[in-house]
Amino acid sequence: MKYIYILLFFFIGCSTKTNKHEFGIVIHGGAGTISKENMSEDLEKAYKNALKESVMIGYKILKNGGTSQDAVEKTINFLEDSPLFNAGKGAVLNYDREVELDASFMEGKNLNAGAISGSKRIKNPISAAIKVMNSSQHVMLSGNGADSFAEELGMELVDQEYFKTERRVKSLNRTKTIESNKTSSVIEQNYLSEKYGTVGCVALDQYGNLSAGTSTGGMTNKKWNRIGDAPIIGAGTYANNNNCAVSSTGWGEYFIRGVVAYDIAALVEYKNYSIKKAARTVINKIESMGGNGGVIAIDNKGNVAMEMNTSGMYRAHVNSNGEIDIKIYN
Amino acid sequence: MKYIYILLFFFIGCSTKTNKHEFGIVIHGGAGTISKENMSEDLEKAYKNALKESVMIGYKILKNGGTSQDAVEKTINFLEDSPLFNAGKGAVLNYDREVELDASFMEGKNLNAGAISGSKRIKNPISAAIKVMNSSQHVMLSGNGADSFAEELGMELVDQEYFKTERRVKSLNRTKTIESNKTSSVIEQNYLSEKYGTVGCVALDQYGNLSAGTSTGGMTNKKWNRIGDAPIIGAGTYANNNNCAVSSTGWGEYFIRGVVAYDIAALVEYKNYSIKKAARTVINKIESMGGNGGVIAIDNKGNVAMEMNTSGMYRAHVNSNGEIDIKIYN
Repeated sequence: MKYIYILLFFFIGCSTKTNKHEFGIVIHGGAGTISKENMSEDLEKAYKNALKESVMIGYKILKNGGTSQDAVEKTINFLEDSPLFNAGKGAVLNYDREVELDASFMEGKNLNAGAISGSKRIKNPISAAIKVMNSSQHVMLSGNGADSFAEELGMELVDQEYFKTERRVKSLNRTKTIESNKTSSVIEQNYLSEKYGTVGCVALDQYGNLSAGTSTGGMTNKKWNRIGDAPIIGAGTYANNNNCAVSSTGWGEYFIRGVVAYDIAALVEYKNYSIKKAARTVINKIESMGGNGGVIAIDNKGNVAMEMNTSGMYRAHVNSNGEIDIKIYN
Repeated sequence: MKYIYILLFFFIGCSTKTNKHEFGIVIHGGAGTISKENMSEDLEKAYKNALKESVMIGYKILKNGGTSQDAVEKTINFLEDSPLFNAGKGAVLNYDREVELDASFMEGKNLNAGAISGSKRIKNPISAAIKVMNSSQHVMLSGNGADSFAEELGMELVDQEYFKTERRVKSLNRTKTIESNKTSSVIEQNYLSEKYGTVGCVALDQYGNLSAGTSTGGMTNKKWNRIGDAPIIGAGTYANNNNCAVSSTGWGEYFIRGVVAYDIAALVEYKNYSIKKAARTVINKIESMGGNGGVIAIDNKGNVAMEMNTSGMYRAHVNSNGEIDIKIYN
């Protein structure tokens, strides 16, 4: 009997030693002028529930030994299917009253990446971005080409009506009224919260692999097949096992010019900044340019950042121990 | 009389002291498998003449006190109009035997940027990218939207036939034959030289302002409205007065994943690398990923880099003194 205890002791000792890597997941559901005064209790509850449900999908995948790619994809799929967020169903409408979807994904292990922009039919753009990465020789497909690619691969396509919600129709009408009254290019903060938004997810799995994904309908009333930062590797999305994984949300034009996602990775890699300091530094740069928004990031040790210069960002984080942190306001 | 000489002496002294900033310009016309054995004497002469003529357009603008933006635009316009290069007239054909043009531009002074992708009608894509920067609230427009924008602004639009050359038709046919015989994704070097190419220009003007621009037809036989690195700020093009201006050419998918143009700027900014060391480091990273191509860069002191991991890159540099350096082979 004594030997059994000794064996058991050794077994436990060994299994502790072979403990896998720390893991974790962070999501965002868009940053903007989100204030407690303008938020009903019911809507706040709906957002928090959706954030919790989606982040737990990814967390469970990671906890069960799944990959960060799978966790990011399935988590974002939930947010795309929810009408609350500006991605997939519930995406904002463009100038022509249509939905045009952008998404990108990057894998930190091998720097593989995929992206689509301007899709009008793909139900889950993040899954299409991953398909571009895995099943084409290209990184980025756009417009009808992205839809044709998804169709050839047997992905689920839907009509425009599937994406459209009454809330976004109203938001477009309001935006058109405000913008038609503008003579200058100065855009008021108070309607920007509904003008754009994004969903994104970054994850570190038990094998030490990072992934990042971002999905969006872009900017309300966007014109001329505008492409924002979400489908741009380096701006909206970046992942590299040597440093971190990042997903951005905000005024995409500034995030492209700031090469935001990669700049955070570069500060971690080249200046040994903590993930939090790197994220803060880059958000401050965007602010000094006149832009606004937020970022989520996780480094290869599981440290996270959720930084913004807006009054709010829908966000959640779960660490290896299953401790969950859900926040809306800054 | 003596006093006049003294005055003259002072005048010359002062004018020397108020000498303006060093300036300079670098161009590329694409990198690839370019070898002396496969190049006729006439073709080599034609390329060298075109490189010289275009770089001197930009040089004269800079010498006469023009801006780096103007120098980059007019220099690239010449390369776009030349059938020798894969941009504008003479661009490669996609899978559907059409020309789809991408371009981007960035201004180092204020980090303003503009880009278009997938245009089928814009005669000079780099000029459209600059128009997006200056006359829209967006940074990147795509497909029909980019063409409509250019049309609304009264830019010159042309038919597809304007862009097409016999050489590119033959090249597409050859590529289709090779690719249809491939079962693996391994692509042979010996036809890559005709598969892609780009033109680009970086310049530093007498006021210390940097600009970068890139224009291309992308990759021969590209499908599904593929977007390469050329129209991506951070990948194909980047400029920041604090560090440098960069334009890339090569296998765009790798250049997107490597965030090449911004990575060079980050190494200069965060690690104090010389422009040459930064460019070499990033090209080595691309090589280690399995990609190939080249970059041109100029820093805010006028130091330049023209680095590649291919057997050649059409390139030229002119410094403040008018010294010109034209090269084709590695």
